Amino acid sequence: MGIFIVLEGIDGAGKSTQAKLLAKWFEEKGYEVVLTKEPTDTAFGKLIRRLVLTGGKEGIIDGARISHEAEALLFAADRAEHVHKLIKPSLEQGKVVISDRYFYSSLAYQWARGLDLNWLVDLNRFAVRPNLTILLDLPVKESMNRINGRKIKTEFDKIAELQRKVRKNYLTLAERFEEIRIINALASMEDIHNDIVALVEHEVLRRIEER
Amino acid sequence: MGIFIVLEGIDGAGKSTQAKLLAKWFEEKGYEVVLTKEPTDTAFGKLIRRLVLTGGKEGIIDGARISHEAEALLFAADRAEHVHKLIKPSLEQGKVVISDRYFYSSLAYQWARGLDLNWLVDLNRFAVRPNLTILLDLPVKESMNRINGRKIKTEFDKIAELQRKVRKNYLTLAERFEEIRIINALASMEDIHNDIVALVEHEVLRRIEER
Repeated sequence: MGIFIVLEGIDGAGKSTQAKLLAKWFEEKGYEVVLTKEPTDTAFGKLIRRLVLTGGKEGIIDGARISHEAEALLFAADRAEHVHKLIKPSLEQGKVVISDRYFYSSLAYQWARGLDLNWLVDLNRFAVRPNLTILLDLPVKESMNRINGRKIKTEFDKIAELQRKVRKNYLTLAERFEEIRIINALASMEDIHNDIVALVEHEVLRRIEER
Repeated sequence: MGIFIVLEGIDGAGKSTQAKLLAKWFEEKGYEVVLTKEPTDTAFGKLIRRLVLTGGKEGIIDGARISHEAEALLFAADRAEHVHKLIKPSLEQGKVVISDRYFYSSLAYQWARGLDLNWLVDLNRFAVRPNLTILLDLPVKESMNRINGRKIKTEFDKIAELQRKVRKNYLTLAERFEEIRIINALASMEDIHNDIVALVEHEVLRRIEER
């Protein structure tokens, strides 16, 4: 069996940068690495980008944004494909799978939208649990500074409020899911990478050796 | 509050014909009727047609059919839009909503594909329960005769086997969900319509009057 590591956190926390650095670190140690992300690039991921992330309204019954439930179910459908077609087969081939976001994102964000956390956990029951999930924790003020250029200014306050809820939810999830470890994402890129490597060596590689 | 009636059954049982006849019956009595179906015509329904019903493979990670879990979640996402954007608002406006298929179809078909029934029930927890669900029950042999022209001959046995499981599942679901009433779909179109009208008058209209 391979190794499955997930990076989570609010926007601007540095997930994709750290995922790439970690992938390089594993590759240099001789591992075969699959670097992946959610939403995926499948037909499901494309529909998520069209209907959820960019706020597109085509094809929706009343021209309004899709319902929170439909959003949660669509993310879970995308994840089911991801798990069954990429993550599980790669792990069975002994590879290292590193994913930029996973089901914790659905829990943190869709719980913030008012859905029932236990329902969200139920939906995602099929999702294999990672060996380690790294939560890059960042104050919302810093997140907003970093992503500022990426968003429309008028939506600033609304986004900041959502980010605050999501950050809080992530920290609560870290108490519920034992595989989650929190790292301070205010540190430098290099320091964060070193913190992640230390966690990987201690929480994953040493445990595998001990078996 | 309006009236919500669902028609269920295996392919060829006459659901859409009976849905139309029932809609006409309600309209002639002066009700405002919304005749609808699942999968819907939203972006979700279109993706279901492309990936599930026609067996399309574009956009899927490994070029294989989508996983059973993704299928179940996609049907549920389509249903969430259907419920939140059409069914609930129509019922709140006092209309009669008649749907050709609803969550029972997901339970009957996806349970037949080997998924856990309780997980499927959980996914669909958001779905408002109909006042009456009519199960048009048909022997598989007759169903296969009726739909023969619609399907590829080589897939005949595979389809017949699935239909047998689905029919059995529907009958089991009728024991679990008290709103389900079984009607023999071997009778003539007129007789079935009359049976449905009798059920509607007895199980729905009389109960509403008694309130």
